[in-house]
Amino acid sequence: MENIRLTSYDEVAEILRECDNVTILTHKSPDGDCIGAGMGLCLYLRSLGKHANVVNSDGFPDRYDFMTLDYQPEEFEEKFVISVDISDTSLLGDELESYADKIDLCIDHHGSNRFFAKKSYVDASSSAACLIIFELLTHMGADITLPIATNLYTGLATDTGCFKFQNTTPAAHIAAAKLMEMGVDFEHINRKMFDIKSRNRVLAEQRLISDMRFFEDGQIGFMTITNQAISDFHIDRSELDAFAQIPLTIEGVRFGYTLKQVENTFKVSLRTTDADAAAICGEFGGGGHLRAAGCTIEGKMREIYARILEVTRKYL
Amino acid sequence: MENIRLTSYDEVAEILRECDNVTILTHKSPDGDCIGAGMGLCLYLRSLGKHANVVNSDGFPDRYDFMTLDYQPEEFEEKFVISVDISDTSLLGDELESYADKIDLCIDHHGSNRFFAKKSYVDASSSAACLIIFELLTHMGADITLPIATNLYTGLATDTGCFKFQNTTPAAHIAAAKLMEMGVDFEHINRKMFDIKSRNRVLAEQRLISDMRFFEDGQIGFMTITNQAISDFHIDRSELDAFAQIPLTIEGVRFGYTLKQVENTFKVSLRTTDADAAAICGEFGGGGHLRAAGCTIEGKMREIYARILEVTRKYL
Repeated sequence: MENIRLTSYDEVAEILRECDNVTILTHKSPDGDCIGAGMGLCLYLRSLGKHANVVNSDGFPDRYDFMTLDYQPEEFEEKFVISVDISDTSLLGDELESYADKIDLCIDHHGSNRFFAKKSYVDASSSAACLIIFELLTHMGADITLPIATNLYTGLATDTGCFKFQNTTPAAHIAAAKLMEMGVDFEHINRKMFDIKSRNRVLAEQRLISDMRFFEDGQIGFMTITNQAISDFHIDRSELDAFAQIPLTIEGVRFGYTLKQVENTFKVSLRTTDADAAAICGEFGGGGHLRAAGCTIEGKMREIYARILEVTRKYL
Repeated sequence: MENIRLTSYDEVAEILRECDNVTILTHKSPDGDCIGAGMGLCLYLRSLGKHANVVNSDGFPDRYDFMTLDYQPEEFEEKFVISVDISDTSLLGDELESYADKIDLCIDHHGSNRFFAKKSYVDASSSAACLIIFELLTHMGADITLPIATNLYTGLATDTGCFKFQNTTPAAHIAAAKLMEMGVDFEHINRKMFDIKSRNRVLAEQRLISDMRFFEDGQIGFMTITNQAISDFHIDRSELDAFAQIPLTIEGVRFGYTLKQVENTFKVSLRTTDADAAAICGEFGGGGHLRAAGCTIEGKMREIYARILEVTRKYL
């Protein structure tokens, strides 16, 4: 069967109106955008009298508690499966692996999307999956309640670095304006998502920055988060996502790598100022966005540095 | 003579259309918002064929170089004086002191504005002086060039912490959307304003955070920047403004104080999560906004701590 690419909100809206008993899948290591998009969509479907749940392989991290306040899983016989913010079935994670060939509708904003679902709506120009959901619900004339708005704002803010990053669009600002008018407590959300750190985390960041390694006149920066550092500083693994932004904050760095030890492999995050991060990570079987991408590399740390350096030098 | 309070953009527009040979004053220790508003207004007045300059007591800090690229001071006989983003004549600084009773038009967004000018347009609900200028120019049907848009976006972004702080409004987001559409390089600006730090600055922040003092179960946090620290780490004084945000990033802190040594006095910046910062600083003769305010206190550090703590406890 041909996988169908949807190109309009009308087409997606029609599917959403018809579906019921929906399982919404978000990616493993869930972040603000996939949780926001999943929850926003789920709460909306429920408001139409439909049954819907949001699931992922790793559960919802504590720091996103405020997004799931109005959510309890329901019991129902699943009839329809939607994935949000998932570009590839490998991101389903172990618990949801069996869904790989059972996804009816994929809603995503990654240019690297592999069109694994029966039908896909992918808008790589959209700042966030939450922005797609916001525009879709607006298009459908939905009553966007405060819990829905809170979820959508959070995903939009977290995926754009609070409207700082290159992927921020005028449409993202306009959506933020409308979501704020619905009463979203953006000040609290942004403090929680971006500003507040435990003293432990501040100390951890200090150590990690001090230990950073730089190459090519400081244009390439590596921050390495070992299992030892994670346990020394009692860092919650869900907090680690934010660390990926750190290397690029050092003056002169154009390629900011974060290497995070996960058992015997390293999960690599790359942030760039002007190079194509998705292309670089693509050379290691990963992917992502133009300025933010990731991949997983096996091997010893020293070898991994060398392999990454070799590839990165082509993009200098 | 009665000082006149203007309440509409029409009234301000009429004045701007009629004035010429304009000196625009910004406050001492200039920041992104006053430079952006001053430059934006100046470049617009010049585009109408008028003469205009922007001045302040301390010059333009290097980090705002990209805002003043298209600006050269002109020679003319001054006939009209406008202040932007200045709430009180004490903020003119030494070099501009003599302007205190000569300001024809004040444009400001501080609730604490003292209406020192002949005519004042003050909108305390506006996120930034740059937002007022943007709305005013839009109202006047101005051709907002890229240099003007760059200035206005920068002020809007810096005064709202890139749309993170409580003073962010839907109008701020809508202005940002429009300014982005004019081609503002927001990614570069935001990186420069918010993210990039020299390694020296990172080291300085580490030391200052390590040395922070906390009171009342960590609700009150003090960060003290001594002359010694400034010279030890070769910190440019213009970089210090951003340090005021740091204390509030530590989990649990509701009153984040930064004490910056300036000769024998301390310039105190206060950021709050929920208390009235302007009221607290007002008790020391200072002022500002609801969540961001400042004052200057003379004395020894220990006494200053004690005085601030005594006042702050009333607001716990």
